[in-house]
Amino acid sequence: MINSYCKSPLWEVSRTLCDVAMGRRPAEIVIKNAKLVNVCTHEIQDNMQVAIAAGRIALVGDAAHCIGEGTRVIDAAGQYIAPGFLDGHIHVESSMLGVGEYARAVVPHGTVGIYMDPHEICNVLGLKGVQCMMKDAERTPLKAMLTTPSCVPAVPGFEDTGSFIGPEEVAETMKWDCTVGLGEMMNFPGILGSTEHAHGITGETLKAGKIVTGHYSMPETGMGLNAYIASGVRCCHESTREEDALAKMRLGMYAMLREGSAWHDLHEVAKSITRHEVDSRFAVLISDDTHPHTLVSQGHLDHIVRRAVEEGIDPITAIQMVTINCAQCFQMDHDFGSIAPGKCADIVFFSDLTKIDISRVLIDGDVVAENGRMLQQMAPYTYPDWATHTMHIRDAVTPASFAIPAEGDTATVHAIEVIPARVGSYDRHVTLKVTNGLLQSDVEQDVLKTAVFERHHETGKVGYGFVKGFGIKKGAMASTVAHDAHNLLVLGVNDEDMALAANTLIQCGGGMVAVADGKVLGCVPLPIAGLMSDLPVDVMSEKVEALEKAWEEIGCTMPSPFMTMALIALACLPELRLTDRGLVDCTKFCFTDLLVKDE
Amino acid sequence: MINSYCKSPLWEVSRTLCDVAMGRRPAEIVIKNAKLVNVCTHEIQDNMQVAIAAGRIALVGDAAHCIGEGTRVIDAAGQYIAPGFLDGHIHVESSMLGVGEYARAVVPHGTVGIYMDPHEICNVLGLKGVQCMMKDAERTPLKAMLTTPSCVPAVPGFEDTGSFIGPEEVAETMKWDCTVGLGEMMNFPGILGSTEHAHGITGETLKAGKIVTGHYSMPETGMGLNAYIASGVRCCHESTREEDALAKMRLGMYAMLREGSAWHDLHEVAKSITRHEVDSRFAVLISDDTHPHTLVSQGHLDHIVRRAVEEGIDPITAIQMVTINCAQCFQMDHDFGSIAPGKCADIVFFSDLTKIDISRVLIDGDVVAENGRMLQQMAPYTYPDWATHTMHIRDAVTPASFAIPAEGDTATVHAIEVIPARVGSYDRHVTLKVTNGLLQSDVEQDVLKTAVFERHHETGKVGYGFVKGFGIKKGAMASTVAHDAHNLLVLGVNDEDMALAANTLIQCGGGMVAVADGKVLGCVPLPIAGLMSDLPVDVMSEKVEALEKAWEEIGCTMPSPFMTMALIALACLPELRLTDRGLVDCTKFCFTDLLVKDE
Repeated sequence: MINSYCKSPLWEVSRTLCDVAMGRRPAEIVIKNAKLVNVCTHEIQDNMQVAIAAGRIALVGDAAHCIGEGTRVIDAAGQYIAPGFLDGHIHVESSMLGVGEYARAVVPHGTVGIYMDPHEICNVLGLKGVQCMMKDAERTPLKAMLTTPSCVPAVPGFEDTGSFIGPEEVAETMKWDCTVGLGEMMNFPGILGSTEHAHGITGETLKAGKIVTGHYSMPETGMGLNAYIASGVRCCHESTREEDALAKMRLGMYAMLREGSAWHDLHEVAKSITRHEVDSRFAVLISDDTHPHTLVSQGHLDHIVRRAVEEGIDPITAIQMVTINCAQCFQMDHDFGSIAPGKCADIVFFSDLTKIDISRVLIDGDVVAENGRMLQQMAPYTYPDWATHTMHIRDAVTPASFAIPAEGDTATVHAIEVIPARVGSYDRHVTLKVTNGLLQSDVEQDVLKTAVFERHHETGKVGYGFVKGFGIKKGAMASTVAHDAHNLLVLGVNDEDMALAANTLIQCGGGMVAVADGKVLGCVPLPIAGLMSDLPVDVMSEKVEALEKAWEEIGCTMPSPFMTMALIALACLPELRLTDRGLVDCTKFCFTDLLVKDE
Repeated sequence: MINSYCKSPLWEVSRTLCDVAMGRRPAEIVIKNAKLVNVCTHEIQDNMQVAIAAGRIALVGDAAHCIGEGTRVIDAAGQYIAPGFLDGHIHVESSMLGVGEYARAVVPHGTVGIYMDPHEICNVLGLKGVQCMMKDAERTPLKAMLTTPSCVPAVPGFEDTGSFIGPEEVAETMKWDCTVGLGEMMNFPGILGSTEHAHGITGETLKAGKIVTGHYSMPETGMGLNAYIASGVRCCHESTREEDALAKMRLGMYAMLREGSAWHDLHEVAKSITRHEVDSRFAVLISDDTHPHTLVSQGHLDHIVRRAVEEGIDPITAIQMVTINCAQCFQMDHDFGSIAPGKCADIVFFSDLTKIDISRVLIDGDVVAENGRMLQQMAPYTYPDWATHTMHIRDAVTPASFAIPAEGDTATVHAIEVIPARVGSYDRHVTLKVTNGLLQSDVEQDVLKTAVFERHHETGKVGYGFVKGFGIKKGAMASTVAHDAHNLLVLGVNDEDMALAANTLIQCGGGMVAVADGKVLGCVPLPIAGLMSDLPVDVMSEKVEALEKAWEEIGCTMPSPFMTMALIALACLPELRLTDRGLVDCTKFCFTDLLVKDE
């Protein structure tokens, strides 16, 4: 596919590269004294030199004749050089950073390209939001490549989102130069069911000669997985077991092995490689989601390669999985993914094959990062007003907004029981007291009143329910990161604090907050679509840490509770969820009453 | 890239495939009881089933639920199944067959796709000749994919061809649905020299998102090879040494390892795989040229895979080299090259992993060959008159046409000394008698008069020279297969027989002939552009054999002398060549007089 993510298309600079390789024109950069991690042949080549011009590699081997006036010679001093790392599937929004700050965070770790699925902003702001993220990306050296969000809304008919994506919208984005494929096709039931809508979305992508990325989260690897792959889905990052990943590779699907902030699949799925004698060309390492703290404390793909090596994968093989394998998955290996003539000069330096201690990063022939710091200045980018003012809630939120009327002295409700660090939930029947005709939270039973306010179209819709399992003893918490519609989710012990939490986020344009006793204890403002901030990663990491402390303060002992909270509204996961339209029975896919009918 | 060589594009049939995989609709074919050669993971999977519909694979695994009314069940009875074989570089013209008969010859051997470079017909008839071959191909199940000839004429300024290909012509063909890339870019001096012409040709291909195939026949693997690859050339079939192929793979170039009828490179170049612990994904097996006799007696890619195994390459690895590796080279692996859901149902059956004894071939879900025979009827195709009447020679050829005047009793000439079974030649100084003011052939010295008649534009041009090394004692021989301009080449002992040989070919529309004493001893008519016949391969093989006997009869003991003869006019090979414009010094790239100047 034609790739718009290089400094220059090859056909514009091929004569320059030939001139440099032949010694008729000096290279811009020559790297010398490097140990080349050759991902093409799976070898280490000692004492190699690389000549670079016009953003691309002109020569690999002996480049002495390419050095002339103006050539910058970089002495690798025996360090390894490898192709820059590519992340085959990532939602930048999960970092809570705009793409600019995200790039500043990950590029020094060796990431030169990401296949991003801006599914979250698309749910809030539609394709014009996606375009803002692409603009934010343009000012960075990172190749932030667009895969069009495929499932907006995630669960049509059960929630109100800010946007809708159908085959026509997908077809439109496929004309954009920046689009390289389709984001994860989560609607596998639609694919397996042969619906016109789902196949229309994948079909428009295939018709454009671009790549359909997948999301097949079922343990089934027989007829369903076959049907899914037969529809043209080329890769999937939802393997959680050795046999899932192995089945996918055997069926010619790229198995994207995930090690994100939230989902640590690698320990299990690496076994598909380490326990079987298989050609690993269909294996790719990806992050899917990365929180600010992970980026600061562990890194990005460098961390994932390290983890792969820890799990017993050969280091060169692991590096192939973030370079050439990924590039081949997206059929962009003619432009990057290896250190070879004609390819973009995207190169990382490190001194230890298992530590992957990135010391220098080149993108398109520019030294963009050294020793953990981005060197390039980025032009400023300001998201437009409509992208930073997305709290479109019709009615003023007051304590009265949280009133849930009921008759009698007690009532039995369906409560969502969350499971720490797991994506599932249980549908629990809980009997609550009715005071003055209203249902209340019950700290004793760890059951908290919860509300979801529609925030996209001022419809005034509010869904009410109860959530069990957060352990909170006082106050309230709220978030606009509430997959996938990202409406305003509030839960708490009392209506006053719930109103305060909601209004705090309404005022700051969205984010995450914890309050108690009429005071804001911690807040992470996320003004960009209620999902992201334009602050740097270290600042965001600190803010999130402070918020986590605030959560602890009000009694929550769950690890990363905001992640668990963010899934309360995700009506495609079992068993019970709450959207702005009400409680959803996610085993039968129908709305359900809050009150349990007489049993 | 969008591929027009499948029965249906995937997006049109994905719902059908899902219906079949899910058991909602019966498959058209189910293969059962097969050992699957899994080229994705490099494994053999026992007892596998494959469900097929709409020309594509719906499911691999347990397909019992896909069998219904109308499903044809093929019991593989424990045989192996592998993806159909792909030839990454082939000139169909070398088989002397039209594409239809070529397909009939190779498909039963397991070949389902070829990347053909119709360089020869393009030299004679230009792009309209190429289009005829594509039409001839359309009636076959073989995926005969076009790579546009890149170097017509091969040596501009030194010969007259029927056609010219420049960047504009290449750009035009890149718009054709049938074009998947550019044929071998033989003009590597132009690439290395950064000429606008050469880079224009490769550039137009890259701009269209298609693949540039290469021809880098130099032993140099440093700056020149780097420059060549940096220009975007993705593969090369001209390696003759272990280190050539290895260097190419290390530089991210697909090393196409050749085992053709003429060039047996595999014994040497297989060492790039067998003697090094390298990832072999950049290795591909190809034929380049296949003569009728080879096709009949040895086969095609089945033979080459056998040869690879004989050279010590693992059988699954060898099969990867004619399936997935080739498909990935051309970035068409989303459509074929593996037995996986969604891919074209191009499948071969065989019972022995080292013998590759192909017993059945499916293309696009149709059983097209069984037990060495093509099952499908082909619609007839007749090449248009202008394609079968290409002997456009201005002047009547008579014995007098071969008069080469000289002064004195003797004269010293530059003679081309051919080397049996090698492509090179020597520039020898030979002293010949002058009789009646004319130079004559000298059987004692094995030096034969030679003439090349321009046959495309009735220019009347004739080049004269002498050739040493054929061993012929009487008569003459002629051929219109005379690379790359394919003018009429005649050599012989006496002018009368030379005229007879020439006129025999002029009358039959081109071909190859041997005559003596006023009689035609053997003739292979090649009426299609003077290069090919529409007769079947076995008939052609017999005719060529008969001609070879005729050559022996007149004294030639060289193996396959017509191949050596076909290179006499190829002015890009050292040292001395003869075109219709005269003798070419191919070390200095200039014309040279026939008579040696006083030394």
